[in-house]
Amino acid sequence: MKDFTPTPRTRIKRLPKRARYDRDTVYSILDAGFVCHLGYVIDKHPFVTPTAYWREGDAVYWHGSSKSRMLLALEKNPNVCLTVTHFDGLVVARSGFHMSVNYRSAMIFGKPYKVSDPEEKLAKMEKFVERLYPGHWNNLRPVHKQELKAMSVFGLHLEEAVAKVRTGGPIDEPEDYRLPIWAGVVPVQQVLGAPQDDGRLAPGTSAAPKVTL
Amino acid sequence: MKDFTPTPRTRIKRLPKRARYDRDTVYSILDAGFVCHLGYVIDKHPFVTPTAYWREGDAVYWHGSSKSRMLLALEKNPNVCLTVTHFDGLVVARSGFHMSVNYRSAMIFGKPYKVSDPEEKLAKMEKFVERLYPGHWNNLRPVHKQELKAMSVFGLHLEEAVAKVRTGGPIDEPEDYRLPIWAGVVPVQQVLGAPQDDGRLAPGTSAAPKVTL
Repeated sequence: MKDFTPTPRTRIKRLPKRARYDRDTVYSILDAGFVCHLGYVIDKHPFVTPTAYWREGDAVYWHGSSKSRMLLALEKNPNVCLTVTHFDGLVVARSGFHMSVNYRSAMIFGKPYKVSDPEEKLAKMEKFVERLYPGHWNNLRPVHKQELKAMSVFGLHLEEAVAKVRTGGPIDEPEDYRLPIWAGVVPVQQVLGAPQDDGRLAPGTSAAPKVTL
Repeated sequence: MKDFTPTPRTRIKRLPKRARYDRDTVYSILDAGFVCHLGYVIDKHPFVTPTAYWREGDAVYWHGSSKSRMLLALEKNPNVCLTVTHFDGLVVARSGFHMSVNYRSAMIFGKPYKVSDPEEKLAKMEKFVERLYPGHWNNLRPVHKQELKAMSVFGLHLEEAVAKVRTGGPIDEPEDYRLPIWAGVVPVQQVLGAPQDDGRLAPGTSAAPKVTL
């Protein structure tokens, strides 16, 4: 697959060695997450809303209520920035200035499109559920027509994208390594707890679905 | 403390029962995080950048390189939206439509100000380090003057803010509770791993600092 071409928006000027334009890196960061932060503009003012998303091929998708403010905003100014960030660790340096964070983030720029065809919307919803709960879609109560209507699905083609990645330990000033100050990484991880049923399971209900984060 | 007054930007229209305007809730969400997603606008286009932040009284602060694009952008259009999100669980419903996520998020709107006084910048840096590593500041190599110069610190007063919180199990359609489909919550948590030193500790170095996330 071809790398993303840097644009004025995606070219990283500060710490360019952290930038990645290859699709494998961008896709793997997107696939490791399930909530993005979506930026949009209303009357020159920025809004950043956390939203569940998923990737399908060369696009990311999210859904929301047909009545959401975001939807109305996108009709006026369709530009978005969709950012996904994973925190992998705290980077503890020997000086305050070199304290850092290990992370993987992806920024996608573009104009989203609305998925209007009900069949396609339903297929997208299935993908979203299967992303988090593989194999669970067919266990669920089928979607009602009015539910599909109440829901909007947006797609954003992956054309203008960049990833930023920081890994490894602190980069201290050469003369600071002789100081008896602890330095290294404290890993951070997102973990799943044991499923807790809602106390209203019908007789004969099978086990909780498998979850992939 | 007085609650935040809803504004056109912070008034939640969709699912208003998830909105919280009390300072205790907003502050506790801010205090539980250390990386926000900062939204700003360049030429009508939104940008969303993950950034480390901390709260001090009635303001949040973040820092960055004096040369960052964000800084230059804020000089032209100083409006930001700073969003902090914690994912607490996956909400598994009996139908695709009612699948949800438990979360706590805070959105802060406003125009940030630059902290210019070197003494004040240094004090802010201390707060940032102490936020993550309580008691560790005095162990560190003191900050050099040119390091302070290379760094910008921004503050944003907490005047226009709102929190959104979803807790608890799925809300399914009444008739769906008789179906033998598993439903409940799968908790999600961020955890710290064991500290890994960088392999270059000087003799006599003490243990890793205590971390509070």
